Amino acid sequence: MIGVLGAGQLGRMLALAGYPLGLRFRFLDTAHDAPVRDLAEFVRAEFTDFAALDRFAAGLDVATYEFENVPVDAVEHLARCVPVFPPPAALRASQDRLEEKTFFRNLGIATAPFVAVDVRADLDRALEGIGYPAILKTRRMGYDGKGQYLIRERAAAEQAWQTLSGAVLLEGFVHFDRELSQIAVRGRDGRIVFYPLVENHHADGMLRLSLAPAPNRTPALEQLARDYARRVLEALNYVGVLTIEFFQQGEQLLANEMAPRVHNSGHWTIEGAETSQFENHLRALLGLPLGAAEARQPCAMLNLIGDLPEARTILAHAGAHLHLYGKKPRPGRKIGHVTVRAGTIEEVLDRLEKLRLSLR
Amino acid sequence: MIGVLGAGQLGRMLALAGYPLGLRFRFLDTAHDAPVRDLAEFVRAEFTDFAALDRFAAGLDVATYEFENVPVDAVEHLARCVPVFPPPAALRASQDRLEEKTFFRNLGIATAPFVAVDVRADLDRALEGIGYPAILKTRRMGYDGKGQYLIRERAAAEQAWQTLSGAVLLEGFVHFDRELSQIAVRGRDGRIVFYPLVENHHADGMLRLSLAPAPNRTPALEQLARDYARRVLEALNYVGVLTIEFFQQGEQLLANEMAPRVHNSGHWTIEGAETSQFENHLRALLGLPLGAAEARQPCAMLNLIGDLPEARTILAHAGAHLHLYGKKPRPGRKIGHVTVRAGTIEEVLDRLEKLRLSLR
Repeated sequence: MIGVLGAGQLGRMLALAGYPLGLRFRFLDTAHDAPVRDLAEFVRAEFTDFAALDRFAAGLDVATYEFENVPVDAVEHLARCVPVFPPPAALRASQDRLEEKTFFRNLGIATAPFVAVDVRADLDRALEGIGYPAILKTRRMGYDGKGQYLIRERAAAEQAWQTLSGAVLLEGFVHFDRELSQIAVRGRDGRIVFYPLVENHHADGMLRLSLAPAPNRTPALEQLARDYARRVLEALNYVGVLTIEFFQQGEQLLANEMAPRVHNSGHWTIEGAETSQFENHLRALLGLPLGAAEARQPCAMLNLIGDLPEARTILAHAGAHLHLYGKKPRPGRKIGHVTVRAGTIEEVLDRLEKLRLSLR
Repeated sequence: MIGVLGAGQLGRMLALAGYPLGLRFRFLDTAHDAPVRDLAEFVRAEFTDFAALDRFAAGLDVATYEFENVPVDAVEHLARCVPVFPPPAALRASQDRLEEKTFFRNLGIATAPFVAVDVRADLDRALEGIGYPAILKTRRMGYDGKGQYLIRERAAAEQAWQTLSGAVLLEGFVHFDRELSQIAVRGRDGRIVFYPLVENHHADGMLRLSLAPAPNRTPALEQLARDYARRVLEALNYVGVLTIEFFQQGEQLLANEMAPRVHNSGHWTIEGAETSQFENHLRALLGLPLGAAEARQPCAMLNLIGDLPEARTILAHAGAHLHLYGKKPRPGRKIGHVTVRAGTIEEVLDRLEKLRLSLR
C-alpha cells in the first residue's frame, strides 16, 4: 500500500501505473473533488492535520508526495511512521527559490545570476550588480509562473517591490535558446536511469508543449544535463523521480528549478518510453529494479488547459493518446494532455499541427 | 459511466484503459474479492438478481460484459434499461459450441467437422462419420479446456458418454500447425479495425503464451482471418472487440471458437499496439473513433498461472512489463501476465527464454 500526499493528476497517473504492479494506493488531499477520487482510497484532510496524517499512515508500506508545495512539516511528521521518498530535504530545497539556487551553485551547477533581497535597499544594490532586465521572484510558493515580476528598468523596481511582498530574490533575465528538462530516477540501491532531454514550451508561465526527445540535442548537452542531475541526486541521497528545468544557451545549461516528483514534461513517457516516469517512481520507492528510460518513438505532449475538448476530435487523429484527469474545466486549469507519437519527429510535428488546428 | 458485468482482470484492464479517457466505471460480479475492487465502484450480486441489475443500471451510459458465461437473460434484462454491447446475440452464440460452429458454417467459415449428439446412438453414428480421434464436447460452459473428452478409439466412446452428461457435440480432432487468434473491433458506425494475427500456445487447455504479431504469417492468411472476422462482425451488427480462435493447417484456417469480448491473447496490445484492445473496446461502445491497431513492436505475452512470482525477478528483465490482477494465487489460476517487447521477434524470444529461466 502506497500513500501519496496530494491527489491531483500526477497522483492519478501514479495509481494507473501502479495497479499493474499489484500495488494499492491511499491519497490525502485538501480538495474534495480530487482527480483520484474514483479510482483509489482517498482521505480528505489538511496536510497539517497530524492526527489525520497518522490515520493516513496506518498500514502504508511507503509514502510519497505528488506536488512540491506540501508542507515539509507534514512530510517530516509522516516520515516518523513510514519511509517517505523523495527525502524531505529535496522537498525543502525545492520550496525556496533561494535555497534551491544556492544548492545548485554549491554543486557547481550553472544558474542565472541571483542574489537574495531582504530589504528595499538590497534591491537597488542587486539591480546594479545584475543589470536589466532582471526578475524579482518570491522565494516560496512559486509555480506555473506565479510570484514573479519582470523589471525592465530602474523605474520599475519600486512597483516590483510593492507587488511582491515578503522574502524575495533577484535573478538575471536569461536570453535562452530554449527550455529543456532532465528527468532522472534514482533507486534505493543508488542506481540512476536518465530519460532523454525534453524540449518545453511555456506560455503565461505554464507548460503548453513538450517535444521528446528534444530535437537537435547534442551528446555533450545530454551528458551535461545528466551530470548535473547526478550531482543533485547523489547530494540528496535521493530516491524516486527528480526533474530539473534548464535554460539552454548554446552548449551551456542554466538550472532554473527542480521538482522532487514526477513532472508534466515527463507525461510523454507513458506512451513514448520503455518505462513511464510514473512506473519508475514507484519502482524506485519500493526498491525494485528500475526500468529502461529510453524513448521508443518521438513524441509531442500537448497540455489541455481550460476548456474540455471533444474526445472524438482528439481520438480521430492518428497516433494521438488522450489523458483526461477527471477535473472540472476552468480557465487556466490543466485538465488533461494529449501525447502524439509517430516514427519521426517531422511526422510528430505534422500530426501535432493538425491536432492543434482541429482543437481551435 | 460504463457498467461492466464481471469484475475480473479483463474488467480491471478495461478500467485502467478507460480512466485516461475520462470515463468512470461500475462493475457487477458474484465474487467478493474481485480484481476491480480497489479501483472502481463495485456491486456484488448474482447476475440473475434482476433487482440488483436495475440498481446497477441506474445512471449508466452504456454497459458491456467481460466474460462470456454471464447469463444471456441478465444481459437482455440490462439491455432494456441501457445500451449493451456487444449485442446479446453474440453472447448467445458463443455460449453454445453447437450454435457457434453452426453459425460459423452458415457464414462460410471453415471449421473442424462437427455433429450434434443428443442420444447415445447419435454418438456411434457420429464417430463413424468423423473417425478417430474425435473430441466429445459439452455444448455449454466450456472454457480453458474444460468439458472436453478425447476419444481415440471406439472402446472409449462409452466412457466419454458417461463422463460428459447433458447436451454434447462431437468434433473431428484437428492436426493443426498452430493456433492463432484474430482480434477485431467494430465501431457503432460499422467501421472495423483489425489487430495482427497472434500465435497462441496452450497447455492443459489454458493459454500460456502469445506471440504477436504471429511470426511467419502470410498476407493471404491474415487476409483470410480478417475476412472471416468481418463476416461475423457484420452478421451480428457487432459493436466492440471480438476474438476468433483458429487452428492453422497450411494456408487454411479452421474457426474453433469466438469470444465476444477483450481476450487474453490481446493483452500484448497494451504495450505493443498503437491502441490497446481495452481502449478500442471502450471507444467502440461509446461511438468514438477507433484507434489504429497495428503492432508497434514484436511482443510475447506470458501468462502467470498459479504462483505469484517475485516482482523484482520479472522487472529486472529488459523490456518486461508486469501486469498483476490483484488475485490470490491458487493452482491453475491466471493471476497476471508479463509482456516482453523488443525490436525484433528474435530478440523477443531471447528475452522470453531468459525470463522463463529466471521464473523457474
